[in-house]
Amino acid sequence: MQSPAIILVRPQMGENIGAAARAMLNFGLDHMRIVDPRDGWPNERAVALASGAGRVLDGAMVRDTLGEVCADLNYVFATTARSRDLAKPVMTPERAMQHARALSAKGLKVGVMFGPERAGLETSDVIRADALISVPVNPEFASLNLAQCVLLTAYEWQRLDTDMPPEVLELAGARLAEGIEVERLLDRLVAALDARRFFWPDHKAESMRANLTNLFHRLPLTERDTRTLHGVVRHLAERDRSDD
Amino acid sequence: MQSPAIILVRPQMGENIGAAARAMLNFGLDHMRIVDPRDGWPNERAVALASGAGRVLDGAMVRDTLGEVCADLNYVFATTARSRDLAKPVMTPERAMQHARALSAKGLKVGVMFGPERAGLETSDVIRADALISVPVNPEFASLNLAQCVLLTAYEWQRLDTDMPPEVLELAGARLAEGIEVERLLDRLVAALDARRFFWPDHKAESMRANLTNLFHRLPLTERDTRTLHGVVRHLAERDRSDD
Repeated sequence: MQSPAIILVRPQMGENIGAAARAMLNFGLDHMRIVDPRDGWPNERAVALASGAGRVLDGAMVRDTLGEVCADLNYVFATTARSRDLAKPVMTPERAMQHARALSAKGLKVGVMFGPERAGLETSDVIRADALISVPVNPEFASLNLAQCVLLTAYEWQRLDTDMPPEVLELAGARLAEGIEVERLLDRLVAALDARRFFWPDHKAESMRANLTNLFHRLPLTERDTRTLHGVVRHLAERDRSDD
Repeated sequence: MQSPAIILVRPQMGENIGAAARAMLNFGLDHMRIVDPRDGWPNERAVALASGAGRVLDGAMVRDTLGEVCADLNYVFATTARSRDLAKPVMTPERAMQHARALSAKGLKVGVMFGPERAGLETSDVIRADALISVPVNPEFASLNLAQCVLLTAYEWQRLDTDMPPEVLELAGARLAEGIEVERLLDRLVAALDARRFFWPDHKAESMRANLTNLFHRLPLTERDTRTLHGVVRHLAERDRSDD
């Protein structure tokens, strides 16, 4: 399946083009198109910042106009921060990338355009899009930069192709222990074990303690569990003393 | 519902602390905790880069050890790039933030820890976590920086709570056309095309008209669009007459 073209429209800073290339490749996108880059092309600063993602820049299509860059695309999204006085479908990044996957699965070519750093896309760009993407950002603080917008889009493209089994945590009405409660239990346990020369030989003692710490923090212990285990440790330690 | 604490463990560059604060606030997270920052605290460069998100830094809890920072937390995630030789649940950012929301809804306190820029979290940090978060990044190119990891986590937290519908049709104040308005447009178009012998040969005329009808009813035309298109058709038809 062909991944979407990331279209940078009149990007200004070479650094941001390079950072966008890295953001793309982090999630497996490698198809970049650039419209009328302010500082010409190729751009040394873009190359410097792209480092390991330089091949994305090498393969980029660079043209003077948005029309040329979109000529072979079947469906184009435009990312916009503010709402426009235009009749267009507006999608979340998630919904947009679902749609992009559906289109790509049919062999259609999809692009996503991103505007220049300061001003974003102009209306004359946006009217060439089939749909808009709007990131559900905090309305009181929206400061996403170009590479971050590209990152979230690429992430959504990739995420929809990743599966992970869900997990369930059953606590039967108890509450999970706080970190300090687990630490206190560990302190008591380690002290008791230390007294019984549990951490032996010496060169293994540290990793044995780390294993115990990992074990107890991994367990979904409830507050009640920690009290139970305190009792267990105390009991064991007392029996140990009585055996002496 | 309390949002998760973003825990920066031994962060090095003040710039990255500031960028993390911005990334958090972009998606409504404002609860930062910092363990043993390399350059001390407060950090001027963090403040400079946070700019509008300075209040996240002002409210940050800063401590010497991870244990202190996690003392009151009920559930802690650790973000890791590489897999660890540890028995822990591993979750995608999406699944982790679903889980975080479920825990927070029960009044439990959640944290997400992020390691230092270069090396990431050490095993001695990770063993204190209840679960790991692994971003489904391109295995051949994984270069997410600290602020980007924070951004994706914050994005997932916010995404799961957004009241933004996945897809809406923005009409910019216009209303979708009624069936009769589309029909009138089609009538005018068909009449104009008929006059130019568009529907030919005769035995295909009916299916050609059906295609046009299907096309115009499929388009999400607004009432204003239909008036625009009436003008277009009338204009074309007039030019046609003047050619006679």
